[in-house]
Amino acid sequence: MLIERLAIVGLGLIGGSLARALRRPGQAQAQAGHISAFDRDEATLRQALAAGVIDDASPDLKAAVAGADVVVLATPPAATAKLLGEAGAALKPGAVLTDVGSVKGRLAVAARAALGQQLPRFVPGHPIAGTERSGLAASFAELFAGRRVILTPLPETAHEARQSIAAMWRAAGAEVVTMAAGAHDQILAASSHLPHLLAYALVDCLAQRPECDAIFSSAAGGFADFTRIASSSPELWHDICVSNRAALLANLADFARHLEQTRQALEGADGAALLDMLKRAKHARDEYAVKYAHKPAHKSVGAGP
Amino acid sequence: MLIERLAIVGLGLIGGSLARALRRPGQAQAQAGHISAFDRDEATLRQALAAGVIDDASPDLKAAVAGADVVVLATPPAATAKLLGEAGAALKPGAVLTDVGSVKGRLAVAARAALGQQLPRFVPGHPIAGTERSGLAASFAELFAGRRVILTPLPETAHEARQSIAAMWRAAGAEVVTMAAGAHDQILAASSHLPHLLAYALVDCLAQRPECDAIFSSAAGGFADFTRIASSSPELWHDICVSNRAALLANLADFARHLEQTRQALEGADGAALLDMLKRAKHARDEYAVKYAHKPAHKSVGAGP
Repeated sequence: MLIERLAIVGLGLIGGSLARALRRPGQAQAQAGHISAFDRDEATLRQALAAGVIDDASPDLKAAVAGADVVVLATPPAATAKLLGEAGAALKPGAVLTDVGSVKGRLAVAARAALGQQLPRFVPGHPIAGTERSGLAASFAELFAGRRVILTPLPETAHEARQSIAAMWRAAGAEVVTMAAGAHDQILAASSHLPHLLAYALVDCLAQRPECDAIFSSAAGGFADFTRIASSSPELWHDICVSNRAALLANLADFARHLEQTRQALEGADGAALLDMLKRAKHARDEYAVKYAHKPAHKSVGAGP
Repeated sequence: MLIERLAIVGLGLIGGSLARALRRPGQAQAQAGHISAFDRDEATLRQALAAGVIDDASPDLKAAVAGADVVVLATPPAATAKLLGEAGAALKPGAVLTDVGSVKGRLAVAARAALGQQLPRFVPGHPIAGTERSGLAASFAELFAGRRVILTPLPETAHEARQSIAAMWRAAGAEVVTMAAGAHDQILAASSHLPHLLAYALVDCLAQRPECDAIFSSAAGGFADFTRIASSSPELWHDICVSNRAALLANLADFARHLEQTRQALEGADGAALLDMLKRAKHARDEYAVKYAHKPAHKSVGAGP
């Protein structure tokens, strides 16, 4: 048994999928012996119990954490920062606390302030997986298969705590890498936060046009793919954008400069510069697609309870 | 029989898929009795013949057109503008000429200059369908199923010619609508040309960073979806962008303004404005997804010969 008793706080897409992944039918052995969960939405807990996703619904955070060997805070970044102290205080000796948030720098500051002596038991983590859907109903056991999980341990983080969280994510099918929180936030600002903001901004920009109905009705599959991430949770993404504001602002500024160069290449007589840009981009995109063979983010069949 | 003799000039993704769609096995009756094709790449013609996609490979454009009842120029916009005159001159009496280009305003000007007395036989058209892949090997019979085809007839276009092209696209599974060339170009600049340029610009922007490998390797499915269209043909998209320059520049400027507002909302203390924008965008994206139920652009299984 990898984890005797697992507690998950927040049974959304990530928390629900992790619970499912650790008890997939057909696995040689159960990865988690007992899964308890707390979610502020009682209906979600009832559904998860009824579907066998969890063994036990806790009435509060403290009850979920007490007795658990591994505690996963699968809540949005702002909530996680607020819950850290309470979760840390309820940890049993030797237990490990982790999270799943998309921004790690601010969280490290919050952890240092909130966790005190429990700081070495905290392993900040971020599974780079998701869809534009949210909630338990969108969760599925294969969400992490072949995906990357980034751990951003603090200097104080216990080696053995880090190993146990890495083992949990590998059991869920993910590849685990480690980096500093600052590097993580810079990289994710570029690969995730900026694209989300661009997709949201484009849809909002077009939705304000008088002819928006004609625009959307004449859109093809490429537009559907390009804007899919704009269907993600606004509250979560507001939280992520604000939590990683500095890195995201720098990325926005860099992109705006690049877009202005593109505009000039299109406006001017220099068709060659535009063609060069398009060729470079296609080359990079094709190379990345081959190198990191990504499966589609979209899961068409609902797997929820 | 809908079309006795069909000629397709350019056997790429669109031309190849149209040929396949009009002779799908299991159809109650063949939609095209005989399909001849011309492509400047001889290997493509040989492959199409061997796969039974076409009946006859023509040695040149004129030979393909002569004898055909319907001629489809399935070439990129710039090539189509150049081929119009030759194709028109070779049309047999009563035959109909159409194209598949993504930009219609410039084409109308070219048609007026090139077609003379044959102008009423020309029906400009644009199937809003495609993938990021190009060429005959990427073509498949279902590409147009449930998609929209926009016809932009000139005032001179014969009603019966327009009806026959509409019937062809309906037989290929598409829904056919009609609008003015100028309106088409404005709408497509927003729904297609701008998103493509943004995807290309983002990938190129990130590929120039020293840490680009870390960025691409830490990207999730959302990034893959968002940037998929940047794998499209650079030559084709250069051609499209330049052909629709004015409308695309206006869209770029509008989006840049919108992005700057978003940046200010993120930079300033006004988190509420950012959240409002994200909420509006999600609402519009969700509404559009339900209303126009788009299938993914991506076809994972190769259907080539």
